[in-house]
Amino acid sequence: MNIDGKAYRTIWLADDGRSVEVIDQTRLPHAFAVRRLATLPQAADAIRTMVVRGAPLIGATGAYGLALAMAEDPTDAMLDRAYAILLQTRPTAVNLRWALDDLRDRLRQLPPDKRRAAAFARAAAICDEDVAICRAIGDNGLRLIRDIAARKPGGARINALTHCNAGWLATVDWGTALAPIYRAHDEGTPIHVWVDETRPRNQGASLTAFELGRHGVPHTVIADNVGGHLMQHGMVDFCIVGTDRTTRRGDVCNKIGTYLKALAAHDNGVPFYVALPYPTIDWALSDGVREIPIEQRDGREVSHITGRTESGACAEVALVPDGSDVANYAFDVTPARLVTALITERGVCPASEAGLLSLYPERRTRHSA
Amino acid sequence: MNIDGKAYRTIWLADDGRSVEVIDQTRLPHAFAVRRLATLPQAADAIRTMVVRGAPLIGATGAYGLALAMAEDPTDAMLDRAYAILLQTRPTAVNLRWALDDLRDRLRQLPPDKRRAAAFARAAAICDEDVAICRAIGDNGLRLIRDIAARKPGGARINALTHCNAGWLATVDWGTALAPIYRAHDEGTPIHVWVDETRPRNQGASLTAFELGRHGVPHTVIADNVGGHLMQHGMVDFCIVGTDRTTRRGDVCNKIGTYLKALAAHDNGVPFYVALPYPTIDWALSDGVREIPIEQRDGREVSHITGRTESGACAEVALVPDGSDVANYAFDVTPARLVTALITERGVCPASEAGLLSLYPERRTRHSA
Repeated sequence: MNIDGKAYRTIWLADDGRSVEVIDQTRLPHAFAVRRLATLPQAADAIRTMVVRGAPLIGATGAYGLALAMAEDPTDAMLDRAYAILLQTRPTAVNLRWALDDLRDRLRQLPPDKRRAAAFARAAAICDEDVAICRAIGDNGLRLIRDIAARKPGGARINALTHCNAGWLATVDWGTALAPIYRAHDEGTPIHVWVDETRPRNQGASLTAFELGRHGVPHTVIADNVGGHLMQHGMVDFCIVGTDRTTRRGDVCNKIGTYLKALAAHDNGVPFYVALPYPTIDWALSDGVREIPIEQRDGREVSHITGRTESGACAEVALVPDGSDVANYAFDVTPARLVTALITERGVCPASEAGLLSLYPERRTRHSA
Repeated sequence: MNIDGKAYRTIWLADDGRSVEVIDQTRLPHAFAVRRLATLPQAADAIRTMVVRGAPLIGATGAYGLALAMAEDPTDAMLDRAYAILLQTRPTAVNLRWALDDLRDRLRQLPPDKRRAAAFARAAAICDEDVAICRAIGDNGLRLIRDIAARKPGGARINALTHCNAGWLATVDWGTALAPIYRAHDEGTPIHVWVDETRPRNQGASLTAFELGRHGVPHTVIADNVGGHLMQHGMVDFCIVGTDRTTRRGDVCNKIGTYLKALAAHDNGVPFYVALPYPTIDWALSDGVREIPIEQRDGREVSHITGRTESGACAEVALVPDGSDVANYAFDVTPARLVTALITERGVCPASEAGLLSLYPERRTRHSA
């Protein structure tokens, strides 16, 4: 996507051909800075400190981290050591393990002097595959937006609502939930996005607002409390969100607060779409509310917030009185009954086991046939 | 209620018998400071700058503002001027106009030399009436909490969830939604309150958390996004909120985001109670979603936030990137179908026209009979 007219990905090979560059997402939205990763420790550090975040982007950065390690020392010992260091940076990130396993298995079969080139090539391929998946999600979601546009008076603005950041900053390019919106905007459909600020980490106000704004997509940041009111008054044509994990029957685990928006959409007849690449589907789980453990994060994310002071510096301020307890549940589960449709790289389907199996027939097993 | 063991109201006559003292709510939760109001301009300024807020407390401060004006100059001219100055401070506050009308009408009938004493006496009576109403709401809501406690295993903690601040800081004492909680806590029922931070103005994280904490009521501050998840997992026994305006048929206008919590309560079989004093009922309106205009406030409340820095000073920081639009709808309407019961100073009733008329039979008109 574009930043002020220039096309970017979130990660790319630097001009020197030997190091990697990423957008430093810890400095968004108030500063845009590129960070160069030239060594394994720098790559590991970028993941750990959330300079890069979003499951697909973490996987891509991990792959490049292994490549940087092979450039320094292409031995089996370094391969194992780099794998372990990178895996520890974000132990629960499924895509990271997948990317690291993929590279390690390929590199082990090669003589050391071929490993550096092969690792860089495979890391680049992982990035390109992610872009292709997100672009396909964009194609499939674009058809839904065109249908909504066709039901509105000619030229009327379409209003989407999204929660958290499932945009290109969370992937290599395009994003998941925002991919259809970028496609619609790029083809000239007048689309406007209500952006939930997404407390407590404010990924909406900081990342989604930044990336939509810099690409030129009209948008308005709102408190997370506002979406229900907007839907009651016909000001939202559809909701679209990403997901961290979706069960076999279509229950959607996503950023805390997603469930409340899905309830409001259902109560007001507003379509609620979830965009997801296939690795997000957890075929082993069915009942999301019962089976998905919900991570509790540091209460400081609720009790404190960081922003830009008048002088331009960034500062953290406390919001909660001393002595008050704080809880920070990071995700919730939206039951499939509230989800209008799932949008994947293969197409659009109902949020149900039958729906998902229609797109992924290879997942059909005897007991589900 | 208590602050660290000492009983307070939000407004009281100072020791000198000629001025009034209030808690400076703009400095909460990070500093507790009392401000003395000795003149009409000081009283008007306290309302305008939100040193005092909450409809009943604004009304009480307005009444004392007129009394301070009469102490300076008990003429008709000053009475009219003070009335106009005070009314302008928060033009949409229904309680303010009611209190000012009440005092002006009484004072006009008195000779100037009687006005000062009469005004102070009536302002004190208005405060006492507010306390009596809130205490009665507490009594009536307490019975509901006792019923919930009776259905739980002996000694099990009861979990309430509230949104915004409808506590004693919004009234003279007790509060509306929090009055039953204080009564239950004071009689030894183990009760814990989930406190929605209530973006964008954070009245939950700052005011509700402060007053519950200082009175000793266990509570946990959460992002507004969290309540649905808690209700899905049986962690909320009931929700209770206040209201700015409730229609004849029981539609509830309250702080933005209330509707989303009511949807989650309904989806999970959690009782959703609304506590209100009678002046909040708008007998002229029926369909709240269609008929109640929703105030839009300054977008800066969304794009910026104030908190305490590490050095202890308060600072404002920007959260939203430059160039992003912001919208700030202040209230939403929860349809009566999502409200389990209304709690007023007269009792508990269903959220319906028949329910409200059962408590306020004097409001029965021919067309509603």
